Amino acid sequence: MKLGFVTAIVPELSLDEVAELASREDYDVIEIMCWPPSRAERRYAGVTHIDLVEFKASDAERVRETLAKHGIEASALGYYPNPLSPDRGESELAVAHLERVIRAAPLLGLDRVNTFVGRDFTKSIDENWPRFLEIFRSLVKLASDEGVKIGIENCPMLFTRDEWPGGKNLAVSPAIWSRMFADIPDPSFGLNYDPSHLVWQHMDPVAPLKEFRDRIHHVHAKDVRVDRERLDRVGILAHPLEYHSPKLPGLGQVDWGHFFAVLSEIGYRGPVCVEVEDRAYEDSLESRKAALRQSATYLRNFIPKRMRSPEL
Amino acid sequence: MKLGFVTAIVPELSLDEVAELASREDYDVIEIMCWPPSRAERRYAGVTHIDLVEFKASDAERVRETLAKHGIEASALGYYPNPLSPDRGESELAVAHLERVIRAAPLLGLDRVNTFVGRDFTKSIDENWPRFLEIFRSLVKLASDEGVKIGIENCPMLFTRDEWPGGKNLAVSPAIWSRMFADIPDPSFGLNYDPSHLVWQHMDPVAPLKEFRDRIHHVHAKDVRVDRERLDRVGILAHPLEYHSPKLPGLGQVDWGHFFAVLSEIGYRGPVCVEVEDRAYEDSLESRKAALRQSATYLRNFIPKRMRSPEL
Amino acid sequence: MKLGFVTAIVPELSLDEVAELASREDYDVIEIMCWPPSRAERRYAGVTHIDLVEFKASDAERVRETLAKHGIEASALGYYPNPLSPDRGESELAVAHLERVIRAAPLLGLDRVNTFVGRDFTKSIDENWPRFLEIFRSLVKLASDEGVKIGIENCPMLFTRDEWPGGKNLAVSPAIWSRMFADIPDPSFGLNYDPSHLVWQHMDPVAPLKEFRDRIHHVHAKDVRVDRERLDRVGILAHPLEYHSPKLPGLGQVDWGHFFAVLSEIGYRGPVCVEVEDRAYEDSLESRKAALRQSATYLRNFIPKRMRSPEL
Amino acid sequence: MKLGFVTAIVPELSLDEVAELASREDYDVIEIMCWPPSRAERRYAGVTHIDLVEFKASDAERVRETLAKHGIEASALGYYPNPLSPDRGESELAVAHLERVIRAAPLLGLDRVNTFVGRDFTKSIDENWPRFLEIFRSLVKLASDEGVKIGIENCPMLFTRDEWPGGKNLAVSPAIWSRMFADIPDPSFGLNYDPSHLVWQHMDPVAPLKEFRDRIHHVHAKDVRVDRERLDRVGILAHPLEYHSPKLPGLGQVDWGHFFAVLSEIGYRGPVCVEVEDRAYEDSLESRKAALRQSATYLRNFIPKRMRSPEL
Amino acid sequence: MKLGFVTAIVPELSLDEVAELASREDYDVIEIMCWPPSRAERRYAGVTHIDLVEFKASDAERVRETLAKHGIEASALGYYPNPLSPDRGESELAVAHLERVIRAAPLLGLDRVNTFVGRDFTKSIDENWPRFLEIFRSLVKLASDEGVKIGIENCPMLFTRDEWPGGKNLAVSPAIWSRMFADIPDPSFGLNYDPSHLVWQHMDPVAPLKEFRDRIHHVHAKDVRVDRERLDRVGILAHPLEYHSPKLPGLGQVDWGHFFAVLSEIGYRGPVCVEVEDRAYEDSLESRKAALRQSATYLRNFIPKRMRSPEL
Amino acid sequence: MKLGFVTAIVPELSLDEVAELASREDYDVIEIMCWPPSRAERRYAGVTHIDLVEFKASDAERVRETLAKHGIEASALGYYPNPLSPDRGESELAVAHLERVIRAAPLLGLDRVNTFVGRDFTKSIDENWPRFLEIFRSLVKLASDEGVKIGIENCPMLFTRDEWPGGKNLAVSPAIWSRMFADIPDPSFGLNYDPSHLVWQHMDPVAPLKEFRDRIHHVHAKDVRVDRERLDRVGILAHPLEYHSPKLPGLGQVDWGHFFAVLSEIGYRGPVCVEVEDRAYEDSLESRKAALRQSATYLRNFIPKRMRSPEL
Repeated sequence: MKLGFVTAIVPELSLDEVAELASREDYDVIEIMCWPPSRAERRYAGVTHIDLVEFKASDAERVRETLAKHGIEASALGYYPNPLSPDRGESELAVAHLERVIRAAPLLGLDRVNTFVGRDFTKSIDENWPRFLEIFRSLVKLASDEGVKIGIENCPMLFTRDEWPGGKNLAVSPAIWSRMFADIPDPSFGLNYDPSHLVWQHMDPVAPLKEFRDRIHHVHAKDVRVDRERLDRVGILAHPLEYHSPKLPGLGQVDWGHFFAVLSEIGYRGPVCVEVEDRAYEDSLESRKAALRQSATYLRNFIPKRMRSPEL
Repeated sequence: MKLGFVTAIVPELSLDEVAELASREDYDVIEIMCWPPSRAERRYAGVTHIDLVEFKASDAERVRETLAKHGIEASALGYYPNPLSPDRGESELAVAHLERVIRAAPLLGLDRVNTFVGRDFTKSIDENWPRFLEIFRSLVKLASDEGVKIGIENCPMLFTRDEWPGGKNLAVSPAIWSRMFADIPDPSFGLNYDPSHLVWQHMDPVAPLKEFRDRIHHVHAKDVRVDRERLDRVGILAHPLEYHSPKLPGLGQVDWGHFFAVLSEIGYRGPVCVEVEDRAYEDSLESRKAALRQSATYLRNFIPKRMRSPEL
Repeated sequence: MKLGFVTAIVPELSLDEVAELASREDYDVIEIMCWPPSRAERRYAGVTHIDLVEFKASDAERVRETLAKHGIEASALGYYPNPLSPDRGESELAVAHLERVIRAAPLLGLDRVNTFVGRDFTKSIDENWPRFLEIFRSLVKLASDEGVKIGIENCPMLFTRDEWPGGKNLAVSPAIWSRMFADIPDPSFGLNYDPSHLVWQHMDPVAPLKEFRDRIHHVHAKDVRVDRERLDRVGILAHPLEYHSPKLPGLGQVDWGHFFAVLSEIGYRGPVCVEVEDRAYEDSLESRKAALRQSATYLRNFIPKRMRSPEL
Repeated sequence: MKLGFVTAIVPELSLDEVAELASREDYDVIEIMCWPPSRAERRYAGVTHIDLVEFKASDAERVRETLAKHGIEASALGYYPNPLSPDRGESELAVAHLERVIRAAPLLGLDRVNTFVGRDFTKSIDENWPRFLEIFRSLVKLASDEGVKIGIENCPMLFTRDEWPGGKNLAVSPAIWSRMFADIPDPSFGLNYDPSHLVWQHMDPVAPLKEFRDRIHHVHAKDVRVDRERLDRVGILAHPLEYHSPKLPGLGQVDWGHFFAVLSEIGYRGPVCVEVEDRAYEDSLESRKAALRQSATYLRNFIPKRMRSPEL
Repeated sequence: MKLGFVTAIVPELSLDEVAELASREDYDVIEIMCWPPSRAERRYAGVTHIDLVEFKASDAERVRETLAKHGIEASALGYYPNPLSPDRGESELAVAHLERVIRAAPLLGLDRVNTFVGRDFTKSIDENWPRFLEIFRSLVKLASDEGVKIGIENCPMLFTRDEWPGGKNLAVSPAIWSRMFADIPDPSFGLNYDPSHLVWQHMDPVAPLKEFRDRIHHVHAKDVRVDRERLDRVGILAHPLEYHSPKLPGLGQVDWGHFFAVLSEIGYRGPVCVEVEDRAYEDSLESRKAALRQSATYLRNFIPKRMRSPEL
Repeated sequence: MKLGFVTAIVPELSLDEVAELASREDYDVIEIMCWPPSRAERRYAGVTHIDLVEFKASDAERVRETLAKHGIEASALGYYPNPLSPDRGESELAVAHLERVIRAAPLLGLDRVNTFVGRDFTKSIDENWPRFLEIFRSLVKLASDEGVKIGIENCPMLFTRDEWPGGKNLAVSPAIWSRMFADIPDPSFGLNYDPSHLVWQHMDPVAPLKEFRDRIHHVHAKDVRVDRERLDRVGILAHPLEYHSPKLPGLGQVDWGHFFAVLSEIGYRGPVCVEVEDRAYEDSLESRKAALRQSATYLRNFIPKRMRSPEL
């Protein structure tokens, strides 16, 4: 496995600076954020480390040189919009840009693109299903043609009242994944698996790795704490951020030893990218860099350092 | 404490038959269902063991005689509609009948009426709040004037897709109870406390007894099982009946020893009424009677039998 | 469900005395031991409460009258030999008598016979399989023709060194049951399910109820304690009685509330028979009767008492 | 085993009334309080159901008749002073009356006396030891000569600030019991074992039964709850009643199934007496009677009812 | 946060050697022991890495140069006597030297001094309270005037029989801290928080961080094991070292992931100093250095390494 | 303690290459495999990093120089045959080569040899005992004479059907170790303690360290996962690899913090050698090297790095 981080956490750095940071902090790869360059309002959204609008082969070459200079690889391109937004304009923009991202990946020598399925959060899962199929059958077809694997992050995108009741991503549970892959069986379609989202949904965060072993296209390393005291006040029907907090790996309730034991058992050799969303480490660029440093130290207990010398 | 059951489970029996059953099965009290006599469609709803439309003192006298004949008392009158229904007609009917129930209680020598707060389940809690206050300030005033305590059952009324997303009852958690009692401080306004609803909301089902000790007007004894295997498939964002099942007391995850330890510590001396909603015991009247028999046997481990002889 | 006990625990009593005891101790049914009348040496084996050698319709009539006199029914006939014994004589005798027991059941108005599959305990499971199929295909065919369900108890029959290494019964785990029922799919072939044997094998004693719901022909209520202190000395590779002890229901580690919750969910309505093998209650007939009394008291928390009056 | 209760909980009743109560509430035996008839100030102390001052054979005969009339036996005589009190007068009075109690037992046909070792609570265990040996060597000698077993209750007698720091009874732990029985090996000297005191001392309440099997002369059935919330505020160095509360059997944290499993395994056949000290059941004689009723119901799950008919 | 250690563990090294050791072993800071230079007898007491008797600005300058030479900072000055000792001379000496330490801190550019409140261990908390207020109101006033924060370590100083019954430090629990800060509200007065002391007092070691977030002036990283086997012999009323042992971080029962999650959530950015008291690492200077090495490795999983390069 | 690994995992490397690898991956020592140079068929068996057939002082010198060149020491010589094999030829060869290994150790300046006791796996423990005593009394005598400690690994050597029923090593539990050391009390005879084998035998993997503190001659660091889902299908009577998997340290269920806490408490200062048997890391030499890298990173949390500079 290769240790990386999601570049959304350092929006103020250029790609060159991000790659330098990754190298210095002992990371092997980075998942590069590729939002279209207009600012989004959601936390961690709207970050553009590669601008894919009008992206050409020469641009791709420059990106590859930048990464190579620091000995860093890209694990994937990341763009996490809501393709099923009830706002048709938002939806169309998302799909159009996702297509760009999928087409850009091979130019960059990459075969992974990470995103959300999205959801019309005002409607039920069943009501969303036809539109999900329509949009993603097409996107998966494109990805398959381009030799690209799509990794859907399993985040419910339901944290506070503005995403209530449905959240902005359908792909939240094994039951739904099974239905997704039954309806769109193309092996290009898979998961960007983040165990933390199963913990706060009170689910086993490790068991699904086995069932979906052929669909794990990418992994996010984020941790989480369910706050028992707050949960006892509000219960699971409250907005989820009322009872849980994202955490750096090792500061939460994911059993990482178990997680990596099973991840290695299913033969996963791909990237594991730290996703920093711990509010206790967000007050400054320095804090966020410290979060990356600490996360790398912790995760190296489970991901062997790569050997840089040629003979190994 | 006095052991009872909610009469909704035996809709086909007359009040006289219910009281006879209670006596034979070693119960002390019954909570008598008082829906208006048109049939409702929800399970356990629409049961009318006393018809309060056109209810007169002479009717009350007959009820009292019927109960006395079997040595059974009424713990409360029960009517569980949705007073905040988005259907204004349904809401008005609910409020009007609730007023009838409240007025009937003193005629029957009773001081407890159990119900739901209700909810416009398509709207958020905040959006429901003004209408809740408007309706319940008036109902609580009436109850207070009549010397009646209102016990709100803490059931989320959110089980399957037709109640999604909000459920049909606001009063689901300590956080909301605190807000309710802050806004309507009249001590007549309280809870019909059912620990099982806290268990499936992943909350401590015992701790709130202490904080709300002055608001526990009535208690329901229902148990529940969260099915770990199903929960691991669907997570807490699914419809709740996808991952939990109501159970008879002793067949679920409520720690009844702990529950009764604290209930006795806070000085509760009121009724504890079994609410049978265990589908495994619903196929026939005989099964439902067996459920009542078994529940009484189990709960007598924690509620001492009353002594019927006068000197005790 | 109906509460009963296995008559092996009171070998010195006649059938009439056993039925009287059952009635007095609040049991509904008994599982009647039907060993051929020569004494066996194993504990609890060799008990003959009905002698089926030369058994005629008139004998059956007498048995039925004896039970009816005390208001007790038979849950099943029980005979637990080793049909796959490496001692061919023992094996043939077992099979021959099992055939007698199966043929006797309908004469007695019964449709259940309980037994063991047996095992050549010196050989592996695979080595035993062909002989198991040969013998049991024939027995199940007979049972099916007679309208009798065979319930195989899931006891490993491996307690001390004389049964080492393989134990004297193949049918010990869900994996093996699945294989058994795949090879002999006749629905007459099923289980006499005892949760305690799964506990000491460190398995979930409740989960298999769901998978094998159509094969649960009979249930034994026995409890068990794994002794942590002794297990820490010898480990699971030691002879099993070095680290566990059978117990009366309620004195062990079976979660009976969970067990009966699921048993009722799968719609089981059959007998649940206490099997007393707790050495702490074996020193005298009086102690064994006390064990039956205590077991009934405990289990009535989960099995409603039958109503004896006709109108219920 | 025989189910009983400690008579201290009903000081206002005469022995005749206590025996009648025991019989009606389904108890087999009572432990009879025999304090000298001047009132003590400690809760549950100072109760005199038999006045042993000037006690004669004819008095004994009357007591036996009273018990026999109700079919109740005495499990033991109980007197729980502080024989090692720093107040020499208190100490001498305690020892003198203990001698009376020991001498009275055989007159009543009894062979068990329960008490405390006591402690000069201002001094360490070592500092108390010589005086303990001096006083108890003599008392045990007397008991042995009289054919009486002394059962020392394992209560630390340290609840609130007036008993701080040492508590008023040395015999609180297996370590101390081992030292006691090493120094006074006479088998008449043993324990009146109460598992609840080990729970709040954060010890295994069951394991010592095996080690001290020959010293378990009597058993008290009391339960206890350690209140996690309060303990988190004050810690184990606070006065013990700041973090725990005595409870009726079944309302606390003793695993009674485990307790009785091991109690039966070690061959204990003696009395098990409910000691009611649950403040939630103390407000009236009626409440205390209800506590006895509930405790008997609960414990009958583990102690078989005696058969009253002669042939059993 | 900054990782450090308490210098008491290396009494034989000079301050220069300690700073060199800290630098080599990857520590950021050290808490410098400042006992008056006569030897004390308690383990870890009496260490003088800066002699503050006759301490002048020039001495301070030398200390600062020494630390700067190795790139190490001082987290605090530490002096842990018993200011409330029943020995008046000991008490006066402690207070006088504490005043010196408080005055010295600003000379060294520091704003933290760590100590104990102390206790007359022969008396109750209430009896100690007036003297505690008298002495600490004055000390806190001095500290406040000097711009120094006092951090009281929450160690009960009750380990063996010589500190029985009360221990030599009042400040052991949230209940007492609340009382302290209510009576002396000056924000200079706070805690040097060590989670291990809450673990062996059977308290939640993390929860108080939130309530006392404004009072956490310094943190000690020490771990602890409660030995279940020994505790089962002696119980919580024994001398605490009979049932627990201090341990290096990571070898005990503190959940450091949880601890640092909450520590970062409350915005703590101060020092976290390893306090080595693990007897298994005390036999030689080499062992103690190894303990520091191992502790740093372990804690770096949770405390990001500082970046030494200026641009970060 | 010194961190090492067992060289069996890199059979294709020469001793020189192994030592270089150890040095580069931050290990202090290696346990060197010394099988006779004919290939064995068992996984991890048959590895020959030093060929001891015809081994001379000059060979020993070359080995020592090779290790010294890389700054690596040998923790022990390892050879794990079945000296009690039912195949007499295999048994005699094993004993003869073990004698060679024992004699070679002092030539290499070593005092530790690790092996198995072996077992005739078709027979019971008692049946094996006389031959065990005969063979090992002689081997231990030789070792004692040579100044060598024999460390018996506590692996049951029972994984799959070919080792059923008894496994190929008697020394699997504290009960058996006690019997071994009672019969062969020579202190040269001891254990090569691997906690993982106790975990899958459902035993406490830490407690025996205390009892056998004088017999812990060497330690293996291997981890293990019991797979609950598989165990629930097959139970503990199945072949052990049907329900558990060996794992790298930190990926399994050993509580390493607890393990090293007690290991340091009993004063163990010897080698702790990683034994890689995790199938997820076996597909290539590169994977196995990565496994060693990761294991070292993880274990350095508990074993301080050695200081290479002379002054430390």
